[in-house]
Amino acid sequence: MRVSKLPCLDWLRNYDGQTLSSDLVAALIVTIMLIPQSLAYALLAGLPPEMGLYASILPLIAYAAFGSSRTLSVGPVAVVSLMTATAVGKVAQQGTVDYATAAITLALLSGLILILLGLIRFGFVTNFLSHPVVSGFITASGIIIALSQLSHIFGIDAPGQTLPELGFSLITMMGKTNAYTLGIGVFCLIFLQLSRRYLASLLARFGLGPMLSQTLAKSAPVAIIAICTFIAYASELDARGVALVGTIPQGMPAFSQPHIEWTVIRELIFPALLVALIGFVESVSVGRTLGARRRERVDANQELIGLGAANLASAVSGGFPVTGGFSRSVVNFDAGAKTQAASVFTAMGIALAALFLTPVLYYLPKATLAATIVIAVTSLIDWRIIKEAWHYDQADFMAIAITIAMTLLLGVEIGVISGVSASIALHLYRTMRPHFAIVGTVPGTEHYRNIDRHNVVTHDNILSIRIDESLYFANAAFLEEIVDTELLQREGIEHVILMCPAVNMIDLSAVEALQEVNASLMERNVKLHLSEVKGPVMDALKRSALLRQLGGSVYLSHHAAVLELAAES
Amino acid sequence: MRVSKLPCLDWLRNYDGQTLSSDLVAALIVTIMLIPQSLAYALLAGLPPEMGLYASILPLIAYAAFGSSRTLSVGPVAVVSLMTATAVGKVAQQGTVDYATAAITLALLSGLILILLGLIRFGFVTNFLSHPVVSGFITASGIIIALSQLSHIFGIDAPGQTLPELGFSLITMMGKTNAYTLGIGVFCLIFLQLSRRYLASLLARFGLGPMLSQTLAKSAPVAIIAICTFIAYASELDARGVALVGTIPQGMPAFSQPHIEWTVIRELIFPALLVALIGFVESVSVGRTLGARRRERVDANQELIGLGAANLASAVSGGFPVTGGFSRSVVNFDAGAKTQAASVFTAMGIALAALFLTPVLYYLPKATLAATIVIAVTSLIDWRIIKEAWHYDQADFMAIAITIAMTLLLGVEIGVISGVSASIALHLYRTMRPHFAIVGTVPGTEHYRNIDRHNVVTHDNILSIRIDESLYFANAAFLEEIVDTELLQREGIEHVILMCPAVNMIDLSAVEALQEVNASLMERNVKLHLSEVKGPVMDALKRSALLRQLGGSVYLSHHAAVLELAAES
Repeated sequence: MRVSKLPCLDWLRNYDGQTLSSDLVAALIVTIMLIPQSLAYALLAGLPPEMGLYASILPLIAYAAFGSSRTLSVGPVAVVSLMTATAVGKVAQQGTVDYATAAITLALLSGLILILLGLIRFGFVTNFLSHPVVSGFITASGIIIALSQLSHIFGIDAPGQTLPELGFSLITMMGKTNAYTLGIGVFCLIFLQLSRRYLASLLARFGLGPMLSQTLAKSAPVAIIAICTFIAYASELDARGVALVGTIPQGMPAFSQPHIEWTVIRELIFPALLVALIGFVESVSVGRTLGARRRERVDANQELIGLGAANLASAVSGGFPVTGGFSRSVVNFDAGAKTQAASVFTAMGIALAALFLTPVLYYLPKATLAATIVIAVTSLIDWRIIKEAWHYDQADFMAIAITIAMTLLLGVEIGVISGVSASIALHLYRTMRPHFAIVGTVPGTEHYRNIDRHNVVTHDNILSIRIDESLYFANAAFLEEIVDTELLQREGIEHVILMCPAVNMIDLSAVEALQEVNASLMERNVKLHLSEVKGPVMDALKRSALLRQLGGSVYLSHHAAVLELAAES
Repeated sequence: MRVSKLPCLDWLRNYDGQTLSSDLVAALIVTIMLIPQSLAYALLAGLPPEMGLYASILPLIAYAAFGSSRTLSVGPVAVVSLMTATAVGKVAQQGTVDYATAAITLALLSGLILILLGLIRFGFVTNFLSHPVVSGFITASGIIIALSQLSHIFGIDAPGQTLPELGFSLITMMGKTNAYTLGIGVFCLIFLQLSRRYLASLLARFGLGPMLSQTLAKSAPVAIIAICTFIAYASELDARGVALVGTIPQGMPAFSQPHIEWTVIRELIFPALLVALIGFVESVSVGRTLGARRRERVDANQELIGLGAANLASAVSGGFPVTGGFSRSVVNFDAGAKTQAASVFTAMGIALAALFLTPVLYYLPKATLAATIVIAVTSLIDWRIIKEAWHYDQADFMAIAITIAMTLLLGVEIGVISGVSASIALHLYRTMRPHFAIVGTVPGTEHYRNIDRHNVVTHDNILSIRIDESLYFANAAFLEEIVDTELLQREGIEHVILMCPAVNMIDLSAVEALQEVNASLMERNVKLHLSEVKGPVMDALKRSALLRQLGGSVYLSHHAAVLELAAES
């Protein structure tokens, strides 16, 4: 299934009435879910609420045209909003025009980076982000996000982007808690948590269909917003110190050429890369999971272009960085969305909200939005992967632990970088000391096995070493050590045979190491031989000087080598 | 051969008269070589000449006590001196006290880092520096060093630490060339180059013994220093604008507690790490090469401690970063040094020079020292490795090319970092798309080979995929793609068997990918089986949930799997 340059053409061609009605239903449900989310994630990013709405209109349409997943729901998401707050907080003061401009610039840069990576077909770079590391990062981000929203729920000013900062500012500011705000916040938390857990089954018990029950349960955030807005309006909560959302400019976003400042771009280019990569990895894994269920293919490079287009669209329409969200996409899928037309309809829904709903939202308490964020991110926190890694392997566990610790202690950017570095370093460390075995013949066969584990036959003049790893710079030095150490333990060895069935690659450093081993063996009148060298490895070795210098020969089978060399003695 | 904590005890125990006389001869030759080198490398580092002498006394004794190589000659070396100039130049102005203090701080920090790495037995981290990358780095550094010395030879002020900077400043300042300085410089270059090429054989033709001829040839730099110093004194060259070394404080270095400034330390900690790593890698490869010739073992972790002690000693006695030098160590070895006592005697020789020779050196032209540096570093420039890499493999060549280009264009620090990053990235890229083959039975045997290369038998209901790479985060995603793609091309497959004889490791990301492959195959009523899984890999898999979820089974031999599953159909 080849994905065409404009993937929307694939589904537009066969679009029919039934697909339309499926898409419309899904769009309605996702719109109801997205209105509170878009406002809340703008709050999380430190931006005015209308920017959340703007980021949920044009980007959806852009992704619908260029993205390869049919059910992915693009828009503001929690982790990327937190990363936006971190990145933009370094170049401007929250609440200023510069801050909003910087967020727009970040979306622009992320969009350009994504499109560039897609055009040069560099989708594979995201493979460097190991899945356990991404899970750990998202878990730690979830904790930071939840903590950062506590200040809105307590009605205090407790800034911070790391666990120690947030902990410290929450504790010192706790005394200034606004009781009304806290009351609203706790009410919302309880309402949302209970409705998430029990509402669907409760409604089903009242005789509603499962689909309708699920949908109504998903509208709990909208319901609580309506309730709290009414309470705040009726009891004039703003006079009692409860922070409200306030005036949201009514209408559609004005198309604008983002105001570009070179110094800001320089500061934001690296954060934009991180936002792009994390956003992409999160999104593509959702897209693939959903795609697999309907056997639809998600192409990494096309996804880069789709998400890049969405971010560019966000930047030109006054939004901030967006990506495919996990929970929203699952809801979209489960609600029956068949194509990206559902996203286009969702965008229309949000546009209507921006046109007509904003005056009503003046009295919406920020604590209510904060509560929806807290409840939403609890689903991001996933200790299962940590437990699994703990049981599976020390190195995987270390990578996750480092990622979580660094993200919590030093923030999201250092967290991502540490995670990637740790997983690469640990991988190299694992292959650094190559596994090897001294082997001998299993009697009566042509098979060779580890002398320590099996009862095998060896020859006094031959040392057979099976190398169980590709040879490259990080383990080349150990190769010399292994041959040296094993040789020193034996007398009368005339031939060393390296058995290479598991050597998938030999780089130039390893060729040099082999040349040194060969030279040092020749000085001691020992010949170095190779056996069972794979085709591509042999092709490479033929281009080096090693084969010319080799004291011994290269054998296709280890058995042939042993037969010939044993006969010699 | 276990190296003890204080390796000098190993050789002190059996020290005798014959060893003493060998060591004394070597020490004399190395001292003659080291006097001009120590002055010249101080000039290269932008430091006063006496600091070169100081860096050649106590550090040698410290290494003699703690280092594990018996013939390594520690002291100032070209590349590390260039790195010192780069690092220190960022925190202070050349010629100031702060500049000298910063160089001392750099030696202190490098020493502490080396000792720390040695104590926690982290010698292996240096394996991340692939040998081709180090060669490329040293070649590029050699070019920068040679260019940086041209300003002294032309008698102009042409600063710069990169190829473009040096080129630009040399060209613009060329007009201010001092003819006397240039005359001295060119005379020295010709003299040194000719004596390096022909002096030894010329002297041998005059009937001198080969050893004596070699020794006299090695003293060419000392001879040219004596000649030029006399010429400068006799013709009062300083009055003609020739830059002289000038007053060198007479006597031994005063022990001093380095004046530590926190802000300087923060700026220098990362450069110190690079100096430590490059210094160590350069030194340990010399040590190992020489050690192998006499079957003496050089222990990486003990070397870290030895070189760390040398740098600490340099810091407390007013020197700058030191390491084991290639050419000097080879001369020491060839001159018959048997133990580090030779280095102790060399240190005494330099101390005597510091006490009695310094007044004489007042008239030494800087151009002469610059010429000795230029001639010395030409031996660092090695195009062979680049040619070799070009023929051997694209990835290796890319890593070297990136290192050389970055070092020349952006300086030594970015050069090292790019080199390491490039080689790691290219290695991961190489293993990212795992090599695999669809296999079938070689008729009449139990062997399985690639269906594209051999005439083999396959079964309609079985897809056998041999994976030729360890499975880890960077290639986990491709695994899913491979199975998917191959399955889509075939009809009637009931069993997919992954044949894993070359899979040396499966990390948690890959386990998750296998779980997803398994789940998606189960949805299509296809069973996933594994065969020929290695012992350690199987041990790891047993700790994961994969084996419980697996639709199929794990077979010890691929043949057994095919026999059983083919019979089923």
